[in-house]
Amino acid sequence: MIRNHKSDGGASVFASAKIARRSFLGLSGAVGAAGALAASVPAAPAKAREWKRRPTFVLIHGSWHGAWCFQLTASLLINEGFRVVALDRPGSGLNAQFPSSYLAGNLNPNEVSPVAGVTLDDYATAAVESIIALRGDEPVIVVGHSLGGIVVNEVGERLGPEGVDHLVYLTAFMTPAGKTGNDIINMDAQFGSLTRTVLLGSIAVTGVARINPNSTDPAYQARAVNTFYNDVPAEMIPAIFNLLTPDEPAAPCSVVTNITPHRWGAIPRTFIRCTLDHAIPVGAQDALIRAADAFTPGNLTRTTTLQSSHSPFFSMPEQLASVLIQIAESTV
Amino acid sequence: MIRNHKSDGGASVFASAKIARRSFLGLSGAVGAAGALAASVPAAPAKAREWKRRPTFVLIHGSWHGAWCFQLTASLLINEGFRVVALDRPGSGLNAQFPSSYLAGNLNPNEVSPVAGVTLDDYATAAVESIIALRGDEPVIVVGHSLGGIVVNEVGERLGPEGVDHLVYLTAFMTPAGKTGNDIINMDAQFGSLTRTVLLGSIAVTGVARINPNSTDPAYQARAVNTFYNDVPAEMIPAIFNLLTPDEPAAPCSVVTNITPHRWGAIPRTFIRCTLDHAIPVGAQDALIRAADAFTPGNLTRTTTLQSSHSPFFSMPEQLASVLIQIAESTV
Repeated sequence: MIRNHKSDGGASVFASAKIARRSFLGLSGAVGAAGALAASVPAAPAKAREWKRRPTFVLIHGSWHGAWCFQLTASLLINEGFRVVALDRPGSGLNAQFPSSYLAGNLNPNEVSPVAGVTLDDYATAAVESIIALRGDEPVIVVGHSLGGIVVNEVGERLGPEGVDHLVYLTAFMTPAGKTGNDIINMDAQFGSLTRTVLLGSIAVTGVARINPNSTDPAYQARAVNTFYNDVPAEMIPAIFNLLTPDEPAAPCSVVTNITPHRWGAIPRTFIRCTLDHAIPVGAQDALIRAADAFTPGNLTRTTTLQSSHSPFFSMPEQLASVLIQIAESTV
Repeated sequence: MIRNHKSDGGASVFASAKIARRSFLGLSGAVGAAGALAASVPAAPAKAREWKRRPTFVLIHGSWHGAWCFQLTASLLINEGFRVVALDRPGSGLNAQFPSSYLAGNLNPNEVSPVAGVTLDDYATAAVESIIALRGDEPVIVVGHSLGGIVVNEVGERLGPEGVDHLVYLTAFMTPAGKTGNDIINMDAQFGSLTRTVLLGSIAVTGVARINPNSTDPAYQARAVNTFYNDVPAEMIPAIFNLLTPDEPAAPCSVVTNITPHRWGAIPRTFIRCTLDHAIPVGAQDALIRAADAFTPGNLTRTTTLQSSHSPFFSMPEQLASVLIQIAESTV
C-alpha cells in the first residue's frame, strides 16, 4: 500500500499535465466512442483558442470525499486556462465533524453522528450561494460526482438555465423527478453495487452512511478499494483513505427530487458513464440517463464514456479533464 | 472539539465570501497598519476593475499540510475572478506516503519514513513544471506558507523575474542566501517556537519531521493547537487533524539556499507577517525580512501584517484573501 519510490507521488500531477495536453491534441483515444461529444473533438489545443468567455468549473464531490479529490483533475483544467473551484460540501472536507469514538481511535459503528442533521437544502444553499458569488459573465459548468449529483439537480432547478450553463453528472445521482437518492441506492444494489459491503452500523441509528477510513482490517480495506478505487494506483490508496471522512449524512437521500422540465430540464447536461464502476454500476447509470431523457425528450442527455472505476479523478485524471474540456467547448 | 451545529461548517466558506467582499470595500480593518501595501488600497472591488491581465495564484503549503489547507482562501480569490491553483507538494496531500505503523493505528515515532528521500529539487522541479504548464500571458503570483517558502525561493531563482511576477511569503521560510531551512528552524527556536513540542522520534533515524495527527492524547493535541492553530475555531480542529499527514521530509531543510540578487532578488516580494504565530515567531519573521533586504537593498521586501496565528487560511481566510488581492493589484 506504500509508494515504492519517493518522487512518484509528486511527479504524477505534473506528468499528467503533459499527458492531458497530448491527449487533448489527439482526443479520440481518451474518450469512449459512445460519447455524443466525440463528434466535436477540436483540432487545436484549448489554449490556442481565444475563447472570449471561457467557462468556470464548479466541482461537487461525492460521499465521504472533499474538494481534495479533484486536485489532479482541477490542476489539469487550470493548466488549460480554466478557473476551477472545488467545494467542500457542508459536513465534508474542512467542514467535517466526527463521531467521538472515531477521534478516540475506536469507531463505534452505531454512535449517533454529529452531521446527522445536515440536509439537502444545506448542500443546495451552499452551492448556489457559491456559484452566485463567483459568477462573472462567463458560463458556469457544475460537475457533481456520485452523491454530488443530487446537489447538481438542486442547483439546476434553483438557478435555472439563466443561472447555470451546463450540468455534468460524473457517474452521479441524476435522480429522476419524484424519486429520492435512496431510490437510486436501491437501484444500484439491484445492479450489483458493492457499496453496502463497506457500510457500518445502522443508518436509522447514526443518521449517516458510515465507513471507517482508518480501518486497519485488510479485508475491509480491500472491499473499499474494490468498491470505489478498483483501477486506482495502489500507492495512492493510503493517501485517499487518510483524507476521507467517515460519515455521509443520510437525510439528503430521503428528499423527493423536485426538478421541472422548464428549469432543470432546460439546461444542457452531460452524463459521464464509468463502465468499471462498482458503486454505481453502469447499468444503473444508463437507467438514470433513460429516465432523464424520458422527462425532457427535447433536451437529451449527452453522454461520454470512460473505462473507469467510480473514481476517474484518481485513476485517469487526464482523460477526465479532456472530457470536461470538451464539455466546455460545447458550452461556449 | 466537535462542531455543535450541523450547518456551521458548510456555511463558513460562503459566509466568508460575503465578508471578504465587504472587507475588500473597506480594507483598512482587514490589514495590519504596518503593511507597505496599505497605501495602495483600492476604492472599488476587484470584480469592478476590468483587469486585462488578472494574475494567477499558485499556492504552496507548509509542513504536514496539503493543497486542501487553502480551500477557504482559494474559494474567496476565485470568487473575485482569479484563477487559483494550490499544489500538493511531493510527499504531501494526495502524494503522501505513510509509515506502516501509522497505517496500523499505532505510530512508531522512529520508523524510517517512506518519504525520507524527497528532496528540495523534487519540490522545486514539480512547482516550476506546474507554473510553466499553467502560465498564459497573465502575471503569476507564487505564495508559500511556512516551509513552502523554501520552494518559493527555488521557484524565484529558477524562473527569475521573466518567469514569475511576485513572490509571497506567508509567515514562511524566506531563507537567506547561504543559509538552510535548518538554520531557520534553529532561529525559530531561539525566538520561542513551539514546533519542537509536537515533533516525535529522531529526525536522524526517520528522515522526516514527524507528528501524529491521529494522536488521541489531549495534551499532545493541545500542544499542536497552541503551536499552529491558536486562533482557529475549535470546531475546525478535528477536520484539520484528519487531513494532515505525519511525515515532513527533512532533507530539503539541509540544502544551502542558492539565490542571487539578479534572479530571485529582482522579483517583487511580499512577506505577510503573522503576529500571533507560535511556530515561526514574528521576531524570526522580521529577522528574515531584514536579511533579505540587506541582500537586495534595491528591492526591499514589502510587508503586511495579520494579527494571526501560523494558520490565517483557517482563522481569517477573508483577511488573507484581501491581502493577496492587494498584492495582485500591486502586480498588474
